[in-house]
Amino acid sequence: MGLSSIKKTVLKKIKPSIKEEERELKVAEEIITKLKNTLPKNYKVRLTGSVAKGTFLKNSADLDIFILVPTSVRKDKLFGIVENAAKKAFPKNKSEVKYAEHPYVRLEGFGRRVDLVPAYEITYIEERASAVDRSVLHTGYINGQIKEREKDEVRLLKQFLKMHDLYGAEIKVQGFSGYLCELLILEYGTFFNLLKDAEKWKFPFSIDLEKYYNSEEDVLKRFETKNITVVDPVDKNRDVSSIVSDEVLYRFMVVARSFLKKPSKKFFERRRFDSRKTKAYLKRHANLFSFSFNHPSIVDDILWGQLRKLGKRIVKYLSDLDFTILDYYLHSDGGKITILIESLERELPEKIPILGPKVSDGRNIELFKKAHKSAVLYLNKGRIVAIENRKKTTFENSVKEFFKKERNLPSYLSRNLRKGKLDKKIKKDVLEGYFFWRKVFRE
Amino acid sequence: MGLSSIKKTVLKKIKPSIKEEERELKVAEEIITKLKNTLPKNYKVRLTGSVAKGTFLKNSADLDIFILVPTSVRKDKLFGIVENAAKKAFPKNKSEVKYAEHPYVRLEGFGRRVDLVPAYEITYIEERASAVDRSVLHTGYINGQIKEREKDEVRLLKQFLKMHDLYGAEIKVQGFSGYLCELLILEYGTFFNLLKDAEKWKFPFSIDLEKYYNSEEDVLKRFETKNITVVDPVDKNRDVSSIVSDEVLYRFMVVARSFLKKPSKKFFERRRFDSRKTKAYLKRHANLFSFSFNHPSIVDDILWGQLRKLGKRIVKYLSDLDFTILDYYLHSDGGKITILIESLERELPEKIPILGPKVSDGRNIELFKKAHKSAVLYLNKGRIVAIENRKKTTFENSVKEFFKKERNLPSYLSRNLRKGKLDKKIKKDVLEGYFFWRKVFRE
Repeated sequence: MGLSSIKKTVLKKIKPSIKEEERELKVAEEIITKLKNTLPKNYKVRLTGSVAKGTFLKNSADLDIFILVPTSVRKDKLFGIVENAAKKAFPKNKSEVKYAEHPYVRLEGFGRRVDLVPAYEITYIEERASAVDRSVLHTGYINGQIKEREKDEVRLLKQFLKMHDLYGAEIKVQGFSGYLCELLILEYGTFFNLLKDAEKWKFPFSIDLEKYYNSEEDVLKRFETKNITVVDPVDKNRDVSSIVSDEVLYRFMVVARSFLKKPSKKFFERRRFDSRKTKAYLKRHANLFSFSFNHPSIVDDILWGQLRKLGKRIVKYLSDLDFTILDYYLHSDGGKITILIESLERELPEKIPILGPKVSDGRNIELFKKAHKSAVLYLNKGRIVAIENRKKTTFENSVKEFFKKERNLPSYLSRNLRKGKLDKKIKKDVLEGYFFWRKVFRE
Repeated sequence: MGLSSIKKTVLKKIKPSIKEEERELKVAEEIITKLKNTLPKNYKVRLTGSVAKGTFLKNSADLDIFILVPTSVRKDKLFGIVENAAKKAFPKNKSEVKYAEHPYVRLEGFGRRVDLVPAYEITYIEERASAVDRSVLHTGYINGQIKEREKDEVRLLKQFLKMHDLYGAEIKVQGFSGYLCELLILEYGTFFNLLKDAEKWKFPFSIDLEKYYNSEEDVLKRFETKNITVVDPVDKNRDVSSIVSDEVLYRFMVVARSFLKKPSKKFFERRRFDSRKTKAYLKRHANLFSFSFNHPSIVDDILWGQLRKLGKRIVKYLSDLDFTILDYYLHSDGGKITILIESLERELPEKIPILGPKVSDGRNIELFKKAHKSAVLYLNKGRIVAIENRKKTTFENSVKEFFKKERNLPSYLSRNLRKGKLDKKIKKDVLEGYFFWRKVFRE
């Protein structure tokens, strides 16, 4: 299938109809009008996000409505203003408090996500008092720059990323935000051009649409990021890609290459899970271990921030014990959190050689001998070596020990972690998620 | 026990009585006289070695008798001259041909080793035509330099080294030669001073008794040896310690430190083998494997040269397969040769991760994927990783494979090696040798 027909077929599925787009804008308009009526005249209400920019995907329109107050209003009053407006304008709709950098209101009862976010009205980024203030400027920038045909390219990119779990700036994903997708298309013109470049990205590299900096070197000096920097066109001190994890970047490059090698509409669909293939994979794999504990009641961003820390800590702990950790995977189903770890070894040798000082270093030789009193000592290439008994030899016991005794576990997880257990059987959805993540080279 | 009483006690055991010394010299004198009578008048006969220098140990006097011919005699005539002289002078004694740099005669029937070695008569080292020509000059040098009390120090050193398998320049030992012992005592004055210095030897370092070189730096530049250089006082281009292996040096330093920490006459006796302790050791040890094959009929120096190569090769082979080799030991009882190998692992994990190129390196990613078609591939820190099945997982099979299939085995050993077998039980003398060698830090 040729590239343009793939594009056509995919867009047919993911691009909202004109009718759908009009409907979304109409709903937004109605909400905005009602809110305006309850708010002082000098307060503005603005639609932002992908609906405002015309880059949303079919059936996934979310309304981000910003209530812009004058900068003279005190910051601690913002949320109350929005909450009151919501109650007055929509007395029958339930609402929920949500937290980003500051609290905002999620309105229920519209058949779609509707967020009411308080912000200051600013024209220049220098006036901003909080991160959300930028959003309105983002919408303005994109609407001023993007061509109609580029909106389709943004949609293709978003769908492509979504189907590979690479889309979304939440900490759980650490992927590409919608705004980043738009900027990338502005930079590369088309989805295809972006992929062609991405497959051979050499890090670190940067994108600076507004040419705020004289050279790439200057950008990298300013941001000191390891891999990619995308300078925000409305705020030259911000890197739009800072949330994107290395892992997500690498996976994007790999999937880009697979697509370019053999373009197919399959890349825009969720890969189906083949349980027979998975079983075969599993058989050929090293040792998989699954540990579960109860979900603490905290918001997703905090949870996933802590889970990522936990993942890194457990891998370091096991690696320090000499286990070869091939990969690990974090999963939450809302009730249970599961850590899946793949290790080369199920068991380590009972003995461990510990390299000591050189034979000429008498003082340290004596200290080493004292420290390894019961060990077998011998010489190897001019250094003393102690053969000690390894304290932990099985993988399972080592992980159990980690959960029981490790200090400084992420604070919100530690209590539940202590009661964590080794799963006798790996849950199907965990395994699916793991293999989805793992099979990146087998498109 | 104080140092001087240790010295006294030990010397009592190892120093030949005046009577023994006189007897040795008398035997030598008789042999020399008989040889002289059968040789042309302008040929000289000289006693060299430790008897000539008065540094031999009780009950270990060996007679090294050199037959010195004028430099006008052709080199290929030398052996014939000595052989004929031996037959004429001692018609009833059997003799054997031995080989060093060139052949010489070992005379039997004297109750001690008697070697008749042909050499050119030289006064200056520049005239020498073969390595043995130096020996007479060595004897002359030592006799001209050594003080009577220093001879005892040489004896203490020799005995100390012998009891720890560190004495002898043959390739099997790669240890300290008698001449090296004498030079070390000339340098340090006493056995004790030598030990005090040796325990903290920092390599590379050198000894240049005759100050042939301006500085240590010059010596090291000339010889490019890794560890120790002892310039031969009769040949400034020769390093007397070149045969000494690193292993022997390190062990000498360790034993020196043990002695200095707690001086005892035990250091001058063979350490007794405690089979109960050894069993306990064995239990706490990693995996010991013993492989044996038949002794080829070659001389010791060639055999041990090849065995050392074999040892290094097998350790490299196993290490490349990921086994952690703690130590190995080579043993020959004249009939069987045994290689004892201590490995941390008895078995390796079935899977092995193979690190591939970076994700941005498309060409090599494709090559890597082709090379690992059936492997599980995944991403790790921006690089592709293949999980392959390991071909050899058990230690025993790996060694068997080495013996069966390894190319370029040392030539004299290869045929017998191919028929080598894994020993079900480790022979007692092999184990003893191994533990003797291993227990260096547990004096």
